[in-house]
Amino acid sequence: MATLWKSRYAQRTQRMGRSVIRELLKYTQQPDLISFAGGLPAPELFPIAEAQAAACRVLSEGGIDALQYGPTEGFVPLRQFIVDRMARYGIRAKAENVVITNGSQQALDLIGKLLLNPGDRILVEEPTYLGALQAWNAYQAEYISVPSDDDGLRTELLEAALRVGPKFMYVLPNFQNPGGTTLPLERRLEVVRLSNKYGIPVVEDDPYGALRFEGEHLPPLVALDSDFQTNAGSNGRGYMEGNVIYLGTFSKTLAPGLRLGWVVAPVEIIDQLVMAKQGVDLHTATFNQMLAWELVKDGFMDEHVRVIRRVYGERRDVMLAALERHFPEGCSWTHPEGGLFLWARVPEWIDTAELLQEAVQFKVAYVPGFAFYAESGHGRNTMRLNFSNAQPAQIEEGIRRLGELLKKEMAQSPH
Amino acid sequence: MATLWKSRYAQRTQRMGRSVIRELLKYTQQPDLISFAGGLPAPELFPIAEAQAAACRVLSEGGIDALQYGPTEGFVPLRQFIVDRMARYGIRAKAENVVITNGSQQALDLIGKLLLNPGDRILVEEPTYLGALQAWNAYQAEYISVPSDDDGLRTELLEAALRVGPKFMYVLPNFQNPGGTTLPLERRLEVVRLSNKYGIPVVEDDPYGALRFEGEHLPPLVALDSDFQTNAGSNGRGYMEGNVIYLGTFSKTLAPGLRLGWVVAPVEIIDQLVMAKQGVDLHTATFNQMLAWELVKDGFMDEHVRVIRRVYGERRDVMLAALERHFPEGCSWTHPEGGLFLWARVPEWIDTAELLQEAVQFKVAYVPGFAFYAESGHGRNTMRLNFSNAQPAQIEEGIRRLGELLKKEMAQSPH
Repeated sequence: MATLWKSRYAQRTQRMGRSVIRELLKYTQQPDLISFAGGLPAPELFPIAEAQAAACRVLSEGGIDALQYGPTEGFVPLRQFIVDRMARYGIRAKAENVVITNGSQQALDLIGKLLLNPGDRILVEEPTYLGALQAWNAYQAEYISVPSDDDGLRTELLEAALRVGPKFMYVLPNFQNPGGTTLPLERRLEVVRLSNKYGIPVVEDDPYGALRFEGEHLPPLVALDSDFQTNAGSNGRGYMEGNVIYLGTFSKTLAPGLRLGWVVAPVEIIDQLVMAKQGVDLHTATFNQMLAWELVKDGFMDEHVRVIRRVYGERRDVMLAALERHFPEGCSWTHPEGGLFLWARVPEWIDTAELLQEAVQFKVAYVPGFAFYAESGHGRNTMRLNFSNAQPAQIEEGIRRLGELLKKEMAQSPH
Repeated sequence: MATLWKSRYAQRTQRMGRSVIRELLKYTQQPDLISFAGGLPAPELFPIAEAQAAACRVLSEGGIDALQYGPTEGFVPLRQFIVDRMARYGIRAKAENVVITNGSQQALDLIGKLLLNPGDRILVEEPTYLGALQAWNAYQAEYISVPSDDDGLRTELLEAALRVGPKFMYVLPNFQNPGGTTLPLERRLEVVRLSNKYGIPVVEDDPYGALRFEGEHLPPLVALDSDFQTNAGSNGRGYMEGNVIYLGTFSKTLAPGLRLGWVVAPVEIIDQLVMAKQGVDLHTATFNQMLAWELVKDGFMDEHVRVIRRVYGERRDVMLAALERHFPEGCSWTHPEGGLFLWARVPEWIDTAELLQEAVQFKVAYVPGFAFYAESGHGRNTMRLNFSNAQPAQIEEGIRRLGELLKKEMAQSPH
C-alpha cells in the first residue's frame, strides 16, 4: 500500500528528466579520467585564503547578522555592489532591482514558478543550457527552438518563432553554454526590437559575461533594451520599465560552492520573485552573502577576474590547438571569445552519446550535445567540451585521446 | 507594451500571498519595539567563535571542495551525521535516505513540486505553519483543515477528513508552530494507523524536536510508522518502505543564517527530491554543509542544545508568568513543553490583526493568528507569541504592554 503513492511521482519526475550531466559525473569521478564534461571552474584559482580572511571578519564583526535569518531580497550591500558592478556594462539599476538567489539556477526556477503554466511555450536557442530545460520541464513547459550558428541565435528566424506565442525568450548572448558563441551587436538589437514589437520578455542569462579573453565587450540585451525604451520615448524611464530579466552569478568569478546568483529586473518583477522565493527557501544564506561582500568590497574582483580570464584564455588556446592537431577531417568547432565551453561537431553518422561509452574507456569524457536540445533526436553528432577545469597538459592529452577515438570510429565506418 | 506582460503574474502571486510576517517585520525593525512576532532564535546563543574556527578549518583543509560545485544530495559526512543523530530518536535511516536542503522551507517547496497538481488537497492542522501554506499556495493547493486543541491535532476528526482524499497530511507533532502544542503518543499512533489504512502519506515537520524543556520525549511519526510497517509484517523492512517524509533543520540548533535543513524519506522519494532540487538550485552551498559538519562532528551539539533548552525554557517560564500576571480574564494560552512559540486566545470579539496596529504604537508586536489558518476568516482572536528571541526583562515588559492594551480594549467594548 505504501508503495502506491510513491509511484504517483514517476511520471512527473520522468518529465523533469534525470540529468545526463549528473549521470555522467558518476563516471568522471575516476581519478585518471580527463573530464571535459562538467562546467567546473579551475579550482586552483579559488580565492581560498581571501575567503578565509573574509569569513573570519564577517563572523568577528557581524556574526549575529551572518547567522540569523535575513531578508528575502538579499543583503543590501551585496545588492548595491552588484548594481555598481553592472553599471560598467551599461546596466542602469538600483538595489531594489536586484534579488539574490542560490546561484542563477534558482533564478531559472523562480522565473518558471512565476511565469509558467503547464503547456506554456518558451523560445530557446538551439542548443541551449541544459539546466534551464530541467528547471522549466518541472513546470511542464513546451519549447520553441530557434537554431544557432557560429554567431549564436539566428535572429532572421526569430520573428516567425515569436508569432507562435512563447511566454518569454531565453537567450545567453555571451560565450553561450553550450555553444561558446557570442551574439553580435546587430543580432542583439534585433532580439530587443522584436521583444518590444511582440511584447514578449527576454530572460538574458549571462554567467560568463565578465570572462572575455579577446574582442570587444558587447552591451547586454538589458542595456540595449533600456536604450530602446528610452529612445522610443515610451516614458523616458528606460530600464526600470524594460522587457528584459537579466541573470548574473558569482559562481564563475568567485566560487560556485557559495551558491550566489542574482536577478536584475523591473521592481514589480523583483517584488514577485521575492514573494516566490520566500515560499521556496525564505532567503539565501546570510553568511554567504556577507562573506562574498566582504571578499569583494575593496576591489578584489578586478584583479581576480583578470587572472581567471588569462588562465581560461590560455586553456582555450590549448584546446583549439589540440583540436586542430588531433581531430580528424569532417569535424568542426566553435571559437569562443570567453567563457568555459567550446562546441564540436563530428560527422553526422556518429552518435556522441554512444561514443561516450567508448570515450570513458579511453579515460576521457564530454557531454553529448543532444542533452542541450529541447527537441529530442537533435544534435546527436555534437559535444560540449569544457576547457576551464583541466590543466593544459591534460587538455592536450584528452583531446588527443578523443581525436584518436574519432579516427578509429571513422576508419571502421562504411561511409 | 512592456507593462502588459508584467501584469500576467499578478494573479499567480496574489495566490501566493504576501506574507503577513514579512510585512510585520517591517514594523518590528524599530529598535525600541519588543517583538514576539518573528521565529528568530536567541542570537546571543549563536556559536560564533566555533563557527569561525570551523570556517577556517574547512577552508584550510578542504577549501577546494568547499568552494566547488557539489552533489545535489548533499555532503556525505553531514548526511551521515544526521542519520546518527536521528537514530537517537528511533529513526532508522541511512545516508541515502537523506537529502540536504536550504532550510526545511526548501523541503516544503520540493515536496510541493513533486506531489502537487493544481487543486490537490493537503490535510493540515488548524492552525498550521504559515510558511508551508506559502510554499504550497504557489502550486495552487487546496486545504482540508482539521482543528487542534491543546494537545494538537484532534485525531478523532482525522478519518472523516482523510476520506475527502488529501494528497498528503502535514503534521508538526512537537511544540507546533504556531500552537506550541505537542501531540500525545496515542494521537501519534492514530495518525500513523490512519495514514496506513488510507495509504495517504504524512509530511512530518520537526524543526523543534530537540528543544524540549520538560516532559518525556515522544517518538516521531516516522519511527512509529516504521514499527507499524514492521509489525504489520508487510515485508519486515520497516522505515525504508514507510509512509512518512520527515523534515529536520539546523536552523534552530545551529543557526538559520546557514540555511541547512534535511529530508528523511524512502530512497525512491529522496531520488525524486534530488532530481527536483537539481533543477531548482543544483545543490545547497558546499561550504555551509562542510562548515556545519566541522562544527558538530566532535560532539559540540549535545552541550549546545542543552544550553538552548535551558535558556528557552527560562524564557517560556517568564512569558507564562507574565501572561498570568498581566493578561485579563477571558484570555487563555498554551503551555509549550519546548520550541519557540506559545499561542494565545483573546475574547472572540477582538480581532488581533486590528489590535496589532495599536500594539505597534505600544511598541510591542506579535503575529495575528489568522495568518496560520488555511481557511480565511478563522482564528481572528488568536495570536502567536515567540519567546526565544527577546530577553526575559523584555518578555515581562512586552507582555505587560500587551496585557494593558487588551484591558483597555475590553473596557471600551460594549460586551
